[in-house]
Amino acid sequence: METVLDSTQPLPVVVDNSKSRYSRLRPLSLGDVRLLDGVLESRRRVNREATLPSQYDHLEQTGRLDNFRRAAGKLDAPFRGVYFNDSDVYKWLEAAAWTLTSDPDPELERMMNAAIRKIEDAQQPDGYLNTYFTFEKASERWTDLTHKHELYCAGHLIQAAVAHHRATGSQRLLNVARRFADHICDTFGPEEEGKRLGTDGHEEIELALVELYRDTGDRTYLDQAQFFVDLRGHGLLGGRTYHGVHGLLGGREYHQDHKPLREMREMVGHAVRAIYLNAGAADLYAEMGDPTLLEALEQMWHNMTTRRMYVSGGIGSRYEDEAFGEDYELPNARAYAETCAAVGSVMWNWRMLTIDGDARYADLLEHTLYNAALPGLSLDGHSYFYQNPLSDSGAHRRSPWFGVACCPPNVARLLASLPGYLYGVSDHGIWVHLYAEGTAEVSLDNDRTVVLRQRTQYPWDGDVEIEVNGESEFGLMLRIPAWCEEGGAIEINGDPFDGSASPGSYAEIRRAWRAGDKVRLSLPMPVRCVECHPYVAENAGRVAIMRGPLLYCVEQVDNPGLDLRDIVLPAEASFSVQYRPDLLSGVAVLKTLGEIIPPDEKWRERLYRRARPRTDAPQDTTVEVTTIPYYAWANREPGPMRVWLRSRFPLR
Amino acid sequence: METVLDSTQPLPVVVDNSKSRYSRLRPLSLGDVRLLDGVLESRRRVNREATLPSQYDHLEQTGRLDNFRRAAGKLDAPFRGVYFNDSDVYKWLEAAAWTLTSDPDPELERMMNAAIRKIEDAQQPDGYLNTYFTFEKASERWTDLTHKHELYCAGHLIQAAVAHHRATGSQRLLNVARRFADHICDTFGPEEEGKRLGTDGHEEIELALVELYRDTGDRTYLDQAQFFVDLRGHGLLGGRTYHGVHGLLGGREYHQDHKPLREMREMVGHAVRAIYLNAGAADLYAEMGDPTLLEALEQMWHNMTTRRMYVSGGIGSRYEDEAFGEDYELPNARAYAETCAAVGSVMWNWRMLTIDGDARYADLLEHTLYNAALPGLSLDGHSYFYQNPLSDSGAHRRSPWFGVACCPPNVARLLASLPGYLYGVSDHGIWVHLYAEGTAEVSLDNDRTVVLRQRTQYPWDGDVEIEVNGESEFGLMLRIPAWCEEGGAIEINGDPFDGSASPGSYAEIRRAWRAGDKVRLSLPMPVRCVECHPYVAENAGRVAIMRGPLLYCVEQVDNPGLDLRDIVLPAEASFSVQYRPDLLSGVAVLKTLGEIIPPDEKWRERLYRRARPRTDAPQDTTVEVTTIPYYAWANREPGPMRVWLRSRFPLR
Repeated sequence: METVLDSTQPLPVVVDNSKSRYSRLRPLSLGDVRLLDGVLESRRRVNREATLPSQYDHLEQTGRLDNFRRAAGKLDAPFRGVYFNDSDVYKWLEAAAWTLTSDPDPELERMMNAAIRKIEDAQQPDGYLNTYFTFEKASERWTDLTHKHELYCAGHLIQAAVAHHRATGSQRLLNVARRFADHICDTFGPEEEGKRLGTDGHEEIELALVELYRDTGDRTYLDQAQFFVDLRGHGLLGGRTYHGVHGLLGGREYHQDHKPLREMREMVGHAVRAIYLNAGAADLYAEMGDPTLLEALEQMWHNMTTRRMYVSGGIGSRYEDEAFGEDYELPNARAYAETCAAVGSVMWNWRMLTIDGDARYADLLEHTLYNAALPGLSLDGHSYFYQNPLSDSGAHRRSPWFGVACCPPNVARLLASLPGYLYGVSDHGIWVHLYAEGTAEVSLDNDRTVVLRQRTQYPWDGDVEIEVNGESEFGLMLRIPAWCEEGGAIEINGDPFDGSASPGSYAEIRRAWRAGDKVRLSLPMPVRCVECHPYVAENAGRVAIMRGPLLYCVEQVDNPGLDLRDIVLPAEASFSVQYRPDLLSGVAVLKTLGEIIPPDEKWRERLYRRARPRTDAPQDTTVEVTTIPYYAWANREPGPMRVWLRSRFPLR
Repeated sequence: METVLDSTQPLPVVVDNSKSRYSRLRPLSLGDVRLLDGVLESRRRVNREATLPSQYDHLEQTGRLDNFRRAAGKLDAPFRGVYFNDSDVYKWLEAAAWTLTSDPDPELERMMNAAIRKIEDAQQPDGYLNTYFTFEKASERWTDLTHKHELYCAGHLIQAAVAHHRATGSQRLLNVARRFADHICDTFGPEEEGKRLGTDGHEEIELALVELYRDTGDRTYLDQAQFFVDLRGHGLLGGRTYHGVHGLLGGREYHQDHKPLREMREMVGHAVRAIYLNAGAADLYAEMGDPTLLEALEQMWHNMTTRRMYVSGGIGSRYEDEAFGEDYELPNARAYAETCAAVGSVMWNWRMLTIDGDARYADLLEHTLYNAALPGLSLDGHSYFYQNPLSDSGAHRRSPWFGVACCPPNVARLLASLPGYLYGVSDHGIWVHLYAEGTAEVSLDNDRTVVLRQRTQYPWDGDVEIEVNGESEFGLMLRIPAWCEEGGAIEINGDPFDGSASPGSYAEIRRAWRAGDKVRLSLPMPVRCVECHPYVAENAGRVAIMRGPLLYCVEQVDNPGLDLRDIVLPAEASFSVQYRPDLLSGVAVLKTLGEIIPPDEKWRERLYRRARPRTDAPQDTTVEVTTIPYYAWANREPGPMRVWLRSRFPLR
């Protein structure tokens, strides 16, 4: 197999589309972006200081690392846990690698290297690597691709290896990943090449192979990714028959195998699988430029965002199958909205954004990051949500770990890679996707280097100052979020910007910049009462509260004595905004006056009754209602929580 | 083991509580009640003529009968299907036996006897009988009580045997069942007796053993039933650890093993399991009179009916686990509402009714029968619903069979036993629970025999004439359904009844009856718009249409061109009632005028937006809206269906 490994030091970029022919935006290196303060940086810091070390302990205590020792013949003990446990180690490694790009940490490095050594030792002579399929299970290799996640685990190994290579320059883990990838490329492929048809029930290998191609220059991996993408939709996954208790679980839609990707128009089946596939297909498009692939992805994005996505950005409406539901099927308390699916949505949206620079993808990336991914991790970094309901009785609490622990290291690798999502570069100039206190060092096409300094309290405030240091002519592309319906106001060195800054677009400020130039962006952040499409049954007559990029919710602890189900907001609710540095690691709380309208007495002992106007005088009471950012719920004492509140607003 | 088999011919009663000390009402023999016309009889006839023969074919074609041939050593082939497939044969046998009590049918009898012969042949020398646990699986007997349904299958064998014995007088199948039951009694019991602790993950054995006790007089079976009921709640089911993918599936609540039954107050876990347990516990109460058992059952009934039951009477809110949800968790399109759970609810309510004669149980029995069990079977008797949603896009259709085929023979045995649910007898007199054209021959306590003749178009019309033939003084107890909020009007031989006939009670007409006496009962049947408790999120602002005992729905085929989601009923909807003998085997359709209010144009490409009054002029159109009984939906061309319709009624 051809090897064209670039001898230059790789750049630590999260997704390396810097040479992708069909990508408009190139990424910045993680090492060139510094987050200095604010919500994102505080979560990244907790991830580094608390989450990563404690996750390593979990990997040890739950036998995930022992499984590698065992596979290497160094431990005589049974395999522990579920058959895809290796992937948690790989995702943790990826998170550790990204973290080390900006924050040297000898102890973290020691853990990382210890894990890598175990992985090296566990690899089989032929390159195969999966600790479950060793010894007594070795003969079962690749016998159940549909369910057993071998290529999924391989994909996470590859992603970890690529991250490790980009972050450290070391090829140790990359060599392991390549040997396994070569084994995979030798095994799976067209029958006329003497290979075997088949791909994994859980997508992940696709995007990993594209990234491995980007990291090594070996086109075999890109072709293999395309083979795996194209094989879907023909019932050829390989393995035993689909799971299925009278059709309830699994099935071809579950695995996105019901039709070829290019023919798909709706998001169906297991949400994480579906969105990983789309991320991989977007990577493939960035390299190959097949318009039918992009068309399918755009249509599916449209279906997801206009029919099958929670107001949080969360996806997956069903506990059964952890799956998308039908159009407008969005139950609140039983929302699945898996944390991993939110991470996957960030991954997919990032790739779509870099392909065409359309602000809608950056909008959804930001929205999903704050409101669907961040809720997955407690503020102290030690416990996790698997499901993220939008309404709860107080019983749904974060867990320190799971038997199926996909979500914890997934949110960890996202947080570790956060600086990579803030900016982009194109021949237009520098794109600012996300606002947060910090700096970025950007190498332009003309070989000039520019340093940007963002000063902002975002997301608590919509004012952003960007100081430009460097001398060059380029466009500074500032995202004006779609939620900012008033549009952004921009001043350059005190003079009003005369271009467009309309919502849902990038304002392009093109000029010959001089050191010390200051751009002030103001994004008005009124509190917004948001209504839902009338076909979503549960949200009829209700509103959700948003401000800036953040979704809010009511939580019992802030509203003692109120039954959250009985809160009714007035038609023209007016809110106060109060930043509370002491609360929930610092949040702006929103307060308003609402009514309490409990069900009338006659409802006490019945579920249904002949419709009649209530006869008792409703004991309507005006009360203060306090809301907090949804991402911060369930970090204090347990109690009910609700996103959608009843409203007197004449909806529809 | 003591054998006290009654030498007299057994009576074909569905549940033989005729000698139960703590039962108020005794049942009538199936042979003494004739249904002559109407909805129930037409469904029973189709069951006999179409369903039972076709189900026997399915039992053959799917290998369920071959499994018995195989276990008997007469067929060298692998076991086919799921491990509890035997139970489908048993339930079919029970249905066949009840059918033969009123309708001799040599072909059905031949099939029944052929099945019984196979069962006899398959029984093991020690009495054990389960075709899955034979040959290579024989050593796995009783090793996984939690999941493998061995005692569940045994329970259905016992129920079939009891039915066969009562229906035919033959002890053939009863002998098989007793040998197995004796083996079970020898195996499971207190450790101090050298037996083993353990009971089944799927309840059914409990009520079966009580019935076996009633049929044989052998108290061992009653004690064994009590042992099995009392063992729950202590984590002692026995078998492998609970299923569970990070806590999603299974668990102790799923199997009603989270606390002892006497301490339960809420309906939780797998709905069929839960309701079978309660039916068995009610049987146990009827014999033993333990008030803590009755208290628990009453509280659970209250929880179910006021918090966790669909307006159809269906139960089970979740696809995952086929389970009850939280209070007020009642999604419509994703309702599980398994047909088996409705059958189980009829069973449980019948037992509660016979214990204390409270009309609320008869109300719910009737409601569940018409609106939750009947929808499970197509009008032609050839296809089945497993789940019964209350809203559908047109994709949910009945199936001719299932891999897990619990529902088809379950609805068949219910329909076959229908005549048994119409009447009761007590020292007060004769109780008329259900109204339907037909006759009943009743033996009173004073050894007199009375024949009742019901003439009625019920449920299309609330007028019922009951002619009493026989000379005796007794109370005629006529159920006045709770839905009949106006109360019933009663005349006796043309004279108004001067007693109470208030809704939700039995009107007691006590007199010295003379042959030819005629009672006329009028139950007003206005169309009712029913609203739902405001905490059920999906039904806010909606109403369901009911008339008499029947729930109605809109189906696309009757409302061409309308988007059912856009129908809005006026606050004071007035309905026309039209009986259509040609339609859906004869139904009364209800018609009203409604508006069509589609979402405004701005909703087209979005799921969420800032709440604002609609700016376009809503294209409100008044249209005729046609509704049909919910039990008859999905019997014509596929299309959307909805039970809950938007309403302008000022709800809450």
